[in-house]
Amino acid sequence: MTTAGILVLTTGGTIDKNYFDALSEYQIVDSAIGQLLKEARVALPFRIEEVCRKDSLELTAADRAAIARAARAAPETRIVVTHGTDTMTETAKILAAEVPGKTLVLTGALTPARFADTDAPFNLGMAFAAAQTCPPGVWIAMSGQVFDGLRVRKDREAGRFVAIEG
Amino acid sequence: MTTAGILVLTTGGTIDKNYFDALSEYQIVDSAIGQLLKEARVALPFRIEEVCRKDSLELTAADRAAIARAARAAPETRIVVTHGTDTMTETAKILAAEVPGKTLVLTGALTPARFADTDAPFNLGMAFAAAQTCPPGVWIAMSGQVFDGLRVRKDREAGRFVAIEG
Amino acid sequence: MTTAGILVLTTGGTIDKNYFDALSEYQIVDSAIGQLLKEARVALPFRIEEVCRKDSLELTAADRAAIARAARAAPETRIVVTHGTDTMTETAKILAAEVPGKTLVLTGALTPARFADTDAPFNLGMAFAAAQTCPPGVWIAMSGQVFDGLRVRKDREAGRFVAIEG
Amino acid sequence: MTTAGILVLTTGGTIDKNYFDALSEYQIVDSAIGQLLKEARVALPFRIEEVCRKDSLELTAADRAAIARAARAAPETRIVVTHGTDTMTETAKILAAEVPGKTLVLTGALTPARFADTDAPFNLGMAFAAAQTCPPGVWIAMSGQVFDGLRVRKDREAGRFVAIEG
Repeated sequence: MTTAGILVLTTGGTIDKNYFDALSEYQIVDSAIGQLLKEARVALPFRIEEVCRKDSLELTAADRAAIARAARAAPETRIVVTHGTDTMTETAKILAAEVPGKTLVLTGALTPARFADTDAPFNLGMAFAAAQTCPPGVWIAMSGQVFDGLRVRKDREAGRFVAIEG
Repeated sequence: MTTAGILVLTTGGTIDKNYFDALSEYQIVDSAIGQLLKEARVALPFRIEEVCRKDSLELTAADRAAIARAARAAPETRIVVTHGTDTMTETAKILAAEVPGKTLVLTGALTPARFADTDAPFNLGMAFAAAQTCPPGVWIAMSGQVFDGLRVRKDREAGRFVAIEG
Repeated sequence: MTTAGILVLTTGGTIDKNYFDALSEYQIVDSAIGQLLKEARVALPFRIEEVCRKDSLELTAADRAAIARAARAAPETRIVVTHGTDTMTETAKILAAEVPGKTLVLTGALTPARFADTDAPFNLGMAFAAAQTCPPGVWIAMSGQVFDGLRVRKDREAGRFVAIEG
Repeated sequence: MTTAGILVLTTGGTIDKNYFDALSEYQIVDSAIGQLLKEARVALPFRIEEVCRKDSLELTAADRAAIARAARAAPETRIVVTHGTDTMTETAKILAAEVPGKTLVLTGALTPARFADTDAPFNLGMAFAAAQTCPPGVWIAMSGQVFDGLRVRKDREAGRFVAIEG
């Protein structure tokens, strides 16, 4: 059945940052996600859909509404969202409110996928597994851990996500 | 509590193969797993324990008993086992029979972790996530998928793991 | 004799750019050159000295004087200078005027050394070879080619260095 | 003019070793050299020609004659030969005797190009530069150094090439 497949919604973020010498600057461009899934020899059916290409600090309410709309409209019930890390938890809240009955896993990277030393493939692997094994709801896969998407924050200085206690 | 951490048992396999020019051959040596988890910025507590360093075609009943013993004896209840792919499903059967009440996830790689183009970090990420999110039992995380460890086989020619139907 | 060794002067540039999540920006930091030479199994004696850490568009006359001074003062007669590409030819002119009797080779990268897909190790290899095989003077090793440092320009749009004809 | 370009003759060796899971063994296959030159953003004209695909311990007199013939017949006068390291110096002797008036540079790698941690791109960069800057003769570019091809040996245990003194 088609719902056995995984939908990957890409929104930008550090994971997709690249460097352009002609501009002497970094920009988010074509996503590296397809290449990562090829390297990972993923045999499970999947589909990649780009929603936007933004640093997550620049995401607007309209962008978040577009992510929720794409997730709701998709035939897939298991969805991975690649996303910048700075406002990942804000998007998680919107998705929890607006996309009922599906398993959504947000992930990203602290270091771009195009770097030799990157957390991108590991994080994407976590997200793929969590999308298959977690019940409906919103989850965040970062820092080696699968978090409840509504009970986690980014500790920017420590460079890691941590669970919210209590 | 210490049981919140993850134990990684390494046994060898392609994931840890390296090339030695002085010998003009490949050998399984010191595991690359610690380096992969560092690159992945894993903040969850984990511990790595080496059980053996073998191509999985060379694993004996005694080796499998040693893996089961290490898993049973560990304080951790969530365990990742890195393993050669050719006999991964045989070890899964032994672990299912001999290690009750724990979540065990076997993973490995079709291409060594030391290659630039490798499935190792993605697979290890899947295994880490599955170890946290799956109920007790034995699971195999390969080919982009989390399989019931007792209902999966390796399709050697296709280079992928596939679920056993029916 | 010590003059058989190679001095590597690092000045910054794209080759040494890294990404910092906590700042959400790229910066030039500790040089990747030592790591590249280790990966290359370089057995020839060498020494690395940092002159500055700047994008080459920000290099001042004082910075260029410091590079020339370091090259002149060094016991080594064969010197590699890692440098941003945008003003590499300007520094070449200064070095040609101020460092007589030594072989100097400037190199850099269009893509940071920390990327998986980078021209950094190849370019550094060219520079090491040219430093050993070229006569005294200033050379630029980029785009697969060893150029006379006074007869080359960067074609920014094409993303390559080209010889100045005539 | 066409002679300004570089010919790359590939013969196999560690630099082109890959791992095949379906066979559980390493083999020399399609060369990684084209990919390395693409990553290096080489803008100088070049041409790649495969002579054979062998571990250099298995090269025969007929193979070496074929390498010499290809080098002699080529319009290019600047030639890079990628080669296994164990008998690189033997091939150097044959080429010195049979290919007059051209600059030939042998190179290879102690670790396959497909590894993340490899000396392949640096060595190929050295060879490209030496092919452009060295006078006619046979040269070996390995271990960070450009050697006279007739006065160098491989120190297998130390894992490096060293000049023959005296």
